[in-house]
Amino acid sequence: MAAKSSRIRLYVDHPLAASERVALSREQAHYLFGVMRLDVGDTVALFNGHDGEWEARIIAAAKKNGVLECEAQTRPLQMPPDLWLVFAPIRKERTAFIVEKAVELGAARLIPMQTGFTQAANRLRQDKLQATALEAAEQCEATYLPPVDPVQRFGRLLDDWNPARRILFCDETLAGTPATLPTEAGPWAIFIGPEGGFTEAERDRLRGMNCAHPVSLGPRILRAETAALAALTLWQAHLGDWR
Amino acid sequence: MAAKSSRIRLYVDHPLAASERVALSREQAHYLFGVMRLDVGDTVALFNGHDGEWEARIIAAAKKNGVLECEAQTRPLQMPPDLWLVFAPIRKERTAFIVEKAVELGAARLIPMQTGFTQAANRLRQDKLQATALEAAEQCEATYLPPVDPVQRFGRLLDDWNPARRILFCDETLAGTPATLPTEAGPWAIFIGPEGGFTEAERDRLRGMNCAHPVSLGPRILRAETAALAALTLWQAHLGDWR
Repeated sequence: MAAKSSRIRLYVDHPLAASERVALSREQAHYLFGVMRLDVGDTVALFNGHDGEWEARIIAAAKKNGVLECEAQTRPLQMPPDLWLVFAPIRKERTAFIVEKAVELGAARLIPMQTGFTQAANRLRQDKLQATALEAAEQCEATYLPPVDPVQRFGRLLDDWNPARRILFCDETLAGTPATLPTEAGPWAIFIGPEGGFTEAERDRLRGMNCAHPVSLGPRILRAETAALAALTLWQAHLGDWR
Repeated sequence: MAAKSSRIRLYVDHPLAASERVALSREQAHYLFGVMRLDVGDTVALFNGHDGEWEARIIAAAKKNGVLECEAQTRPLQMPPDLWLVFAPIRKERTAFIVEKAVELGAARLIPMQTGFTQAANRLRQDKLQATALEAAEQCEATYLPPVDPVQRFGRLLDDWNPARRILFCDETLAGTPATLPTEAGPWAIFIGPEGGFTEAERDRLRGMNCAHPVSLGPRILRAETAALAALTLWQAHLGDWR
């Protein structure tokens, strides 16, 4: 059987360099050998979030484990711009959706935030969201994996905020005014409230910060996850790596 | 019991005007009276896609039917810009997602398209997608409901294309080049291919059309539904009603 050079991409928590050997987890071995029917001699792409993407050959394959050997770097590390997405968790599948899309669109760090109107933050599974981010990175050919932080409270987050990082926040009260974006480069964070938006007090607090810029996202009411995607898109096209 | 003035919004296929009476479908009656526990005297918001939004009072309520009477127009009809979204259906829930988001972001017409790499077009349920669009319109406070067309073949669609409507198509081969958008106003359509993109022949055909403009959406690989959202967002901010 001819060796398969598949476009399967795996994230591994292991250094990647020429001749480096990487042991597979049980799940990865099952996926490669059981599901995808790869075997010794076949190759897959590996990335670990900091050494770029490597072509690696299978040198040992068993039901529950296996070993790959790195051969050549196929792509260098490509970092996304220094953009955080700070978002209030919503319903489970829509929160997962925010995480998946933030990875595709190129956010560097994801911070779930508990706000006054946030319902679901105490049920938030950080490990599951990180797994969602990992899967999205495997799919979208990313060489970087954004970390998903533990939930933080809105107030605490802003108490400790470094004003060198500008904040873009979606202000529903501006609906219908032009979606004008600031032009300052440098580190940024996008803040997205839950369904129902920020509380009046939260909005006042953001408006009072010099580093915070409100933005309108058109005349219709956007769901929280739609606002997250739209804001990431506009930021990337104006200030990020889509320019 | 005090009358409830809820923010429940229903789409009805019926003219709306002062004193106009509207009979509810069985499902709507179940929803209003069984699920939401509304009763005679309570009000809901109605829209039909062309008469704006009306406050209507419940004047008869039964298990399987009911009657509302329009009282006052609460918002005029707000048409989205003349933007079509022409998209290749993908997996079921991701196709529904494209439709939902296109309504929120403000597309005027949705056209599912069969391309060379489209897998799922023969299983597409136009009625289900129209129902998804309707639900999205009810949720996002839209007063307009974009129609979802039957599936059309890529070739046939372009054979009959009116060149006065410009086409924005997402060209994966431009990944990494700037996401520059054209500036021509007027009618537009966004074309989104399936997972795997357009075929070489399809891309050549689009490139050969004077009215078609390729656009890049950043250096990462976007899923089809992400590309649809990002393209709608950029178009709205540059040429649409987010300006």
